[in-house]
Amino acid sequence: MGDRAQQELLLARAYLAAVAEPPAPALAGFVAAQGACRAAAIVRRGNAPPAVMSEVDARREHVSGEALLAAAEEVGARLVVPEDPEWPGEVLDALSGARSVGLSGLAEPIALWVRGRAGLGGLLEQAVAVVGARAASGYGEHVAAEFGHGLAAADFTVVSGAAYGIDGAAHRGALGAPRPTVAFLACGVDVDYPAGHSRLLRAIAETGAVVSEYPPGAAPRKHRFLARNRLIAASGRATVVVEAGPRSGAANTAHTADALGRPVLAVPGPVTAQNSVGCHAMVRSGMAVLVTSTEEVLEVINPLGARPSAEVPRPMRRTDGLHPDARRLHDSLSGMDGASADELARDCGLPLGRVRALLPELELSGLAIRSEGGWSVKRS
Amino acid sequence: MGDRAQQELLLARAYLAAVAEPPAPALAGFVAAQGACRAAAIVRRGNAPPAVMSEVDARREHVSGEALLAAAEEVGARLVVPEDPEWPGEVLDALSGARSVGLSGLAEPIALWVRGRAGLGGLLEQAVAVVGARAASGYGEHVAAEFGHGLAAADFTVVSGAAYGIDGAAHRGALGAPRPTVAFLACGVDVDYPAGHSRLLRAIAETGAVVSEYPPGAAPRKHRFLARNRLIAASGRATVVVEAGPRSGAANTAHTADALGRPVLAVPGPVTAQNSVGCHAMVRSGMAVLVTSTEEVLEVINPLGARPSAEVPRPMRRTDGLHPDARRLHDSLSGMDGASADELARDCGLPLGRVRALLPELELSGLAIRSEGGWSVKRS
Repeated sequence: MGDRAQQELLLARAYLAAVAEPPAPALAGFVAAQGACRAAAIVRRGNAPPAVMSEVDARREHVSGEALLAAAEEVGARLVVPEDPEWPGEVLDALSGARSVGLSGLAEPIALWVRGRAGLGGLLEQAVAVVGARAASGYGEHVAAEFGHGLAAADFTVVSGAAYGIDGAAHRGALGAPRPTVAFLACGVDVDYPAGHSRLLRAIAETGAVVSEYPPGAAPRKHRFLARNRLIAASGRATVVVEAGPRSGAANTAHTADALGRPVLAVPGPVTAQNSVGCHAMVRSGMAVLVTSTEEVLEVINPLGARPSAEVPRPMRRTDGLHPDARRLHDSLSGMDGASADELARDCGLPLGRVRALLPELELSGLAIRSEGGWSVKRS
Repeated sequence: MGDRAQQELLLARAYLAAVAEPPAPALAGFVAAQGACRAAAIVRRGNAPPAVMSEVDARREHVSGEALLAAAEEVGARLVVPEDPEWPGEVLDALSGARSVGLSGLAEPIALWVRGRAGLGGLLEQAVAVVGARAASGYGEHVAAEFGHGLAAADFTVVSGAAYGIDGAAHRGALGAPRPTVAFLACGVDVDYPAGHSRLLRAIAETGAVVSEYPPGAAPRKHRFLARNRLIAASGRATVVVEAGPRSGAANTAHTADALGRPVLAVPGPVTAQNSVGCHAMVRSGMAVLVTSTEEVLEVINPLGARPSAEVPRPMRRTDGLHPDARRLHDSLSGMDGASADELARDCGLPLGRVRALLPELELSGLAIRSEGGWSVKRS
């Protein structure tokens, strides 16, 4: 594509991305069918089909692609479009698929504003979403940071929403590992929201990316968080929920991931606090798989590379591996001190012959000792 | 049955219960086939089939039914046998069923020693097992006490093992409600084990029952805890596990309940501690259902009386129930102060006509207010 054609395309996509409030299923379908430049021209002229017009009517004469691109340049952001090699098509195609089967709330983005130099496609090639409540507990933030770090160390990009609480902890955990992390915002990529995370957002953009559907300067709005959540859900091979109260945006992300066919994983917590109510409900309903560690997340998203599902590690005992009869005899030995084979047989209820055969075995294994007073257990 | 026949039966069962170390599948099957008095006579003579003989050989000349019954009377215990009306056949029949299909570790008890006046059958008519780790956390003990109390208040007998930690907390919680509680021991019902629970055991026996397969004076042995666990698992309509570490007897009880076809329910906890590792593993493997409250336990064991599965209660907001467009407009109003319908349409992306129609609706609902400067959100 020539420089000029490329510039025209960017102008068209910048215009189209801002002219309707995402998700804009009619416009997204129209752009997919017509191509961006043609769709932009038709929308600008007011000639689009009614469903598209109702999405674009309020803004079509008030948006300027030129002004948006200039504003982006000023704040060090760029527009990434589906025609770019770095467009994360593999993950976002799930959204156009969802739109085309009528899940209109999940329409694909028309373009994405990006702050950060790393290529978006590469970043999202293998990614995991880690989300959760803003009003997180110390426990939740600790676990989110552990998961964020563990996933990044296992070479998965941690995707989240840069909010206070779980999101921030997950990003921070990931920043401690070499693999970069990606934040999707519900406002412009130049808007420091939440304000207390401006330093965090800068750190994320330095090696990873801060991404948004909304143009530079756009303010966060409640429904934008829901719209933004679909991008997080689509970006992760799985969505891990760490703490979600009874009314949590994280539950919305989880439902979207589920609707997109991506596994939902939930971390449990104390039942005495409200913070994990949402996680427990997701496990109980069967929507989410309970996970307690990064390894268990990796088992789900990376089944080929996974080790066999880890048995709960059990501390070994010296009597492990003994025949049940031998263990029963050893139990009796432990409860008596200096006993004859006869007394032991009565105590444990095994036939005398069996006891006589087992005692030397236990002695050889270093578990029993014979003395003048009779048989006793040998302590390690 | 005459007094004399009844006495003979008690003597035979007292002898048979002690002559083999439980679970004694061959002897249990032999007694079921021959009847207790006949079986006792044959065993005493040494004429039983080889499988039975190997279970009884060590003790058959050393056990006296008379002595055991006398010892029981001395400590205020009685022997309950399958021929008694108070025998909890409905729940224990699951064990004879398991034995007859070859699950020999689950053989039924031949008789039960009971301390406490309440009839055992009535106590176990509707019961729930609550079990867990001895080395419980404060969190685990708190939850066990809550569940114990909640289940007893809902008129379910709490069955447990009287151990330190979860068991004790569950019994204590139940003792605070009118419904009695039942403890199964791995030693004689007169043996205060653990020593620190002698007062608790007395309190349990006062209104409920302390029960054991082992005769008065019998000492606890490791394998007896496992054998005892099958009685707990069989007694409960469901088994609730509150905290189980990587190597917990509670996991054994849970597996037994599962093998008997009784639901297993597990309470989650922090993933940062070892105490809930076993509970989480049971949920992950699909063996256990995650539960966070007594109500959720009742839903499982009492599906007929259950209210429909409780949705997570969500705090209400004033904008709940609004059309999504109205909510989107309200979002914009919240972000602006004194805006025209035109400005609002551009901000939220809705067609101007729609905005003009929605604003009066929001005003009527008390969510928007019109002033000289334009439209604003109305705070409650």
